[in-house]
Amino acid sequence: MSETAKTEGVVLYHYWRSSASWRVRWALAIKGVAFEKVALNITEGQQMSDEHRARNPIGHVPALHVDGRTLAESVAIVEYLDETRPEPWLYPRDAWMRARCRQAVEIVNSGVQPLQNLVVLAKVGDDPEKRKEWVAFFVTRALKALEGLYETIAREGGFEGAAPGFVFGEKQALTAAEIFLVPQCYAARRFGVDPAAFPRVYAAEQAALKTEHAEGARPENQPDAPKA
Amino acid sequence: MSETAKTEGVVLYHYWRSSASWRVRWALAIKGVAFEKVALNITEGQQMSDEHRARNPIGHVPALHVDGRTLAESVAIVEYLDETRPEPWLYPRDAWMRARCRQAVEIVNSGVQPLQNLVVLAKVGDDPEKRKEWVAFFVTRALKALEGLYETIAREGGFEGAAPGFVFGEKQALTAAEIFLVPQCYAARRFGVDPAAFPRVYAAEQAALKTEHAEGARPENQPDAPKA
Repeated sequence: MSETAKTEGVVLYHYWRSSASWRVRWALAIKGVAFEKVALNITEGQQMSDEHRARNPIGHVPALHVDGRTLAESVAIVEYLDETRPEPWLYPRDAWMRARCRQAVEIVNSGVQPLQNLVVLAKVGDDPEKRKEWVAFFVTRALKALEGLYETIAREGGFEGAAPGFVFGEKQALTAAEIFLVPQCYAARRFGVDPAAFPRVYAAEQAALKTEHAEGARPENQPDAPKA
Repeated sequence: MSETAKTEGVVLYHYWRSSASWRVRWALAIKGVAFEKVALNITEGQQMSDEHRARNPIGHVPALHVDGRTLAESVAIVEYLDETRPEPWLYPRDAWMRARCRQAVEIVNSGVQPLQNLVVLAKVGDDPEKRKEWVAFFVTRALKALEGLYETIAREGGFEGAAPGFVFGEKQALTAAEIFLVPQCYAARRFGVDPAAFPRVYAAEQAALKTEHAEGARPENQPDAPKA
């Protein structure tokens, strides 16, 4: 799918296998926001065009045209959607649990995802084994850190009413923490790291994947994904 | 300065030259929160101890003991401080400008800082020139992206009342965007990149450095910094 003309509505510029794109697709679906998808093939460098840099100056996907302007950085987008389209909330209402949720989000968003993206891997080198070893090191570190964070939250009491696997959720179990976690677990497997080695992390991923809207956001269900 | 016993108050576990530590020191000062500093020498690996991993499972500085518990990830900490210690606000009150502010924060926090930290540089290799080239590439990319973002915000109208150099601030000019920007500009210079090549970014940095509380948060003014 190539770029098409903008519509007046909400438009997501994304790529089927991009972790950050997946997060935003999922958040939009949970919030019930109708949106058009425009795929950019990042393996061909389409995200580096001047046209796309006007949407996102760092030249990444995703970018979201919303409320008449275009926003980038998935953390900023998910927070904005949560503030402007309340319920179901993606961040907990309790300030401390919201801080814990943001901590989990950043362990993924800054602790590992920047180290596995295409631009970085290009600089790591052409050797596929070297790339795999590089990503596996950082993914393992992040999943281990998340497991530790989940243990800490459980020790702090967590939420009594949280569904099994969810540690951040109040009435609405799914939060931004899982929206960032699930694509990271998918990337982990691509690079040979099994999230099942981290029981609390794995339980959260599996529970999140069973929620409404999870299926439609998955990479393989995007129009630009290769046909099986 | 080595680790000391916890107090009942607010304790920051930091390192003088860590960008993320600087952000939190500065935010605490702006909010008027009294805190004790405990320095961990990250060049000696003190942040990797079991004791510190109990504070921050990914083994980084900073970690902040606050309100009886310990939080990590500078984004989560600054957002938490802003939510629990209002005024002066570190995030704009307008939802769209808050989104833009978070976008700027993430261009630093996930777009470049993870690529210049010690663990990553250790994996890039021992050659100082290779390390410098690696960091310079990513820092330049991020500062260029920030310059583009600042231009976009100016085109969108910005804030009429904003002080020169500040593009996010309403009545209170300084925001989280500059708190993340200033330490990044410092790191840029260490790796041979001159922020003055990016006029809007440079103006924001210079304006932010002139604000109250800026001086006390600087690396060279920390007790664990080498004496000049």
